[in-house]
Amino acid sequence: MVDWVTERITHHLEALRTFGQDEYGAITRLPFTQENKMAENYLIDAMKQCGLTVQTDCVGNIYGFYEHNCEDRKYIAIGSHYDSVIDGGAYDGTVGVVVGLVLAEYLHKEQMQLDTNFVLIAFNDEEGVRFGTGLFGSKTFLGQTTLSDLHSFKDREGISIYQAIQAYGNNPEDINQRPLSQDQIALFLEVHIEQGPVLENQDKEIGIVHTIAGLQRYMITLRGKSNHSGTTPMSMRLDPTLSACQVISSMIEKAKSLGENNTTTIGFIQATPGAVNIIPEKIEFSVDMRSVEKDNLAAMEEAMRENLDTFCSQNSIHFDIEKKLEMESVTMNEKFTQDLYAISKGEKYDTIMMPSGAGHDALPIGMERDTALIFVPSHNGCSHCKEEYTPVSSVVKAYNVVKKYFETYRVEEC
Amino acid sequence: MVDWVTERITHHLEALRTFGQDEYGAITRLPFTQENKMAENYLIDAMKQCGLTVQTDCVGNIYGFYEHNCEDRKYIAIGSHYDSVIDGGAYDGTVGVVVGLVLAEYLHKEQMQLDTNFVLIAFNDEEGVRFGTGLFGSKTFLGQTTLSDLHSFKDREGISIYQAIQAYGNNPEDINQRPLSQDQIALFLEVHIEQGPVLENQDKEIGIVHTIAGLQRYMITLRGKSNHSGTTPMSMRLDPTLSACQVISSMIEKAKSLGENNTTTIGFIQATPGAVNIIPEKIEFSVDMRSVEKDNLAAMEEAMRENLDTFCSQNSIHFDIEKKLEMESVTMNEKFTQDLYAISKGEKYDTIMMPSGAGHDALPIGMERDTALIFVPSHNGCSHCKEEYTPVSSVVKAYNVVKKYFETYRVEEC
Repeated sequence: MVDWVTERITHHLEALRTFGQDEYGAITRLPFTQENKMAENYLIDAMKQCGLTVQTDCVGNIYGFYEHNCEDRKYIAIGSHYDSVIDGGAYDGTVGVVVGLVLAEYLHKEQMQLDTNFVLIAFNDEEGVRFGTGLFGSKTFLGQTTLSDLHSFKDREGISIYQAIQAYGNNPEDINQRPLSQDQIALFLEVHIEQGPVLENQDKEIGIVHTIAGLQRYMITLRGKSNHSGTTPMSMRLDPTLSACQVISSMIEKAKSLGENNTTTIGFIQATPGAVNIIPEKIEFSVDMRSVEKDNLAAMEEAMRENLDTFCSQNSIHFDIEKKLEMESVTMNEKFTQDLYAISKGEKYDTIMMPSGAGHDALPIGMERDTALIFVPSHNGCSHCKEEYTPVSSVVKAYNVVKKYFETYRVEEC
Repeated sequence: MVDWVTERITHHLEALRTFGQDEYGAITRLPFTQENKMAENYLIDAMKQCGLTVQTDCVGNIYGFYEHNCEDRKYIAIGSHYDSVIDGGAYDGTVGVVVGLVLAEYLHKEQMQLDTNFVLIAFNDEEGVRFGTGLFGSKTFLGQTTLSDLHSFKDREGISIYQAIQAYGNNPEDINQRPLSQDQIALFLEVHIEQGPVLENQDKEIGIVHTIAGLQRYMITLRGKSNHSGTTPMSMRLDPTLSACQVISSMIEKAKSLGENNTTTIGFIQATPGAVNIIPEKIEFSVDMRSVEKDNLAAMEEAMRENLDTFCSQNSIHFDIEKKLEMESVTMNEKFTQDLYAISKGEKYDTIMMPSGAGHDALPIGMERDTALIFVPSHNGCSHCKEEYTPVSSVVKAYNVVKKYFETYRVEEC
């Protein structure tokens, strides 16, 4: 017989996956679409059914306030996002929302009084796929979105966020209106799938994140001179290929040499004009470098610049460096994190402290408020695809840690 | 005052460039098009005006027979091609046709009797741009094209060579009909622009080709596993990027180490899926390797295979090697070549013996008949672009060498 928690978590995960799922099981739930609205309505109903007072803001963030609380206290917030990428899975974001929802159901069922306020937040548009934003819902909650942003970010059909919000039935002019101020939040807790292979590879059940890695992104262009592959001797070429390969090799080796939690990824590379019998006039490649250590990220950047200098000048190749993105690493709240770690160990879950290489809503919120982030294993490390999978039994473990944490706030009356 | 030869060469080059020239000076004269027909008609007229007996075959090759000849002799053929690439220049191919045409005008003007037959051949479709063929006209002359080829090769609009020939007003069923058999050719001579920087860089006026380089082309695919760039530690990746860069670097270094006349070009490279934050599941790149030395080409191939084995197995990456093209190097006829070299030196032209990295009609014909190939400098090594340029004064020098060579066959009567 299935226990109550397993049943509730399964119920909500199964319900939410239907909003935007195609015949192959891939889920596409982009912000301000019909599927997004169906998920929003589902969550509002489910929150109301367990006694939460529900409010929304104009960007589709949903706030469920637990009323059996102590009115003069700040809030412990729990949340994640309910949008998806294109052809994504059923767990990314959704798992954290569902854990918060079942927690609220539990608190409601037990009519539990807490020596804290509690709010469940289901953020919209964390993925940023439609408008090219990223962490849009949580950043808007933090007051980091302007009216001008709503006009400038547009989807592939030229629809601005402003227009999309209007079409969704909300008023984008309310961008600065929200039912909760970030100052009212004492602690923010997110449960999320790892989206990587570490927990599963190490047979761990729970990961407590200590740091979210910092990130630098670049587009690098090496320029030589296009020429006929047959008629131009090697000594008379200005071919950017060798320099590009030397630089990329050295960058990957550098990340490896710095040990775990330092990564360099070249996800995009292109030679122009790209014909088999023409020496490329330019080679462009993307760089995505991450580290939990600020010094290591700086060392990787310095090595990249030095290697570009060295290997390009050896072959008389020009280069451009365009920095596309830079985010510093964010440390999770130490006491909060240690408390969750202790609870998880107390539950006999095989638990590790670990870094997060990816962002999540806990990144922008963690920059402003005391935050913790709990990871559950991703099967095969897969994410952002229909193969994304985390067993309900894993989600139950994260739920149990969260529940135990909230029970430490239990009081007979405020 | 401009001398007769300079005037005639300039006249024909200027006339021919008008067929397919756009407002920026780029020339597009693809086979079996209106521009192609205009050039064909111009050449037929010009050949007839200097007394040549003109015949054509169904693929647009034009044959101009010099009648003041000794009927029982084989032919010395001179020729090149009159088609172009897309947005090409006014010299590639055309220069060789014009030199032959002005030679015929000279022989006609002088009413010269030769102790050989002589034929000027203007080949069609050497470039192969429209149908993805290459050397089509000269290979067809050699009897290497089948009816089935005419049906299977199609342009981007789905028009087969067969259909294009019909639309051009010719009968593709005549594919095996030609006014001259290759057995009738004693010697074949082509004048062509170098399409590379060697002659200009070395301040040389004439290059006599001793060998046309052999060629191997490959598409190489390295396969790993796609994953999130942030959440997958370097030690848990199957990232093909490092192996690809190591292999490419080693291949380019190998070609350099073998000295001049050995080249390796990676003209195309692509990571899939090609997103900044996704570890590539595969990297594909093209390889174009050339050498005049059969042993060197074999050594480059062996090094490529060894490096793929070594660098891919180090990183647990799979690879596929697809050979797309292999052509052995072709040696020009030694006596013919030495005669032309001696004449050029006798004319006080700064002359070198050199290899050709590119093919030309002299490649397939050189495999069957005794052949020689004369290069004139390409300004900045440019070709296949509107910047392609060779001064008329350079073409005049090649003409003078050719004329002197033919004059060695002069007789009072057969």
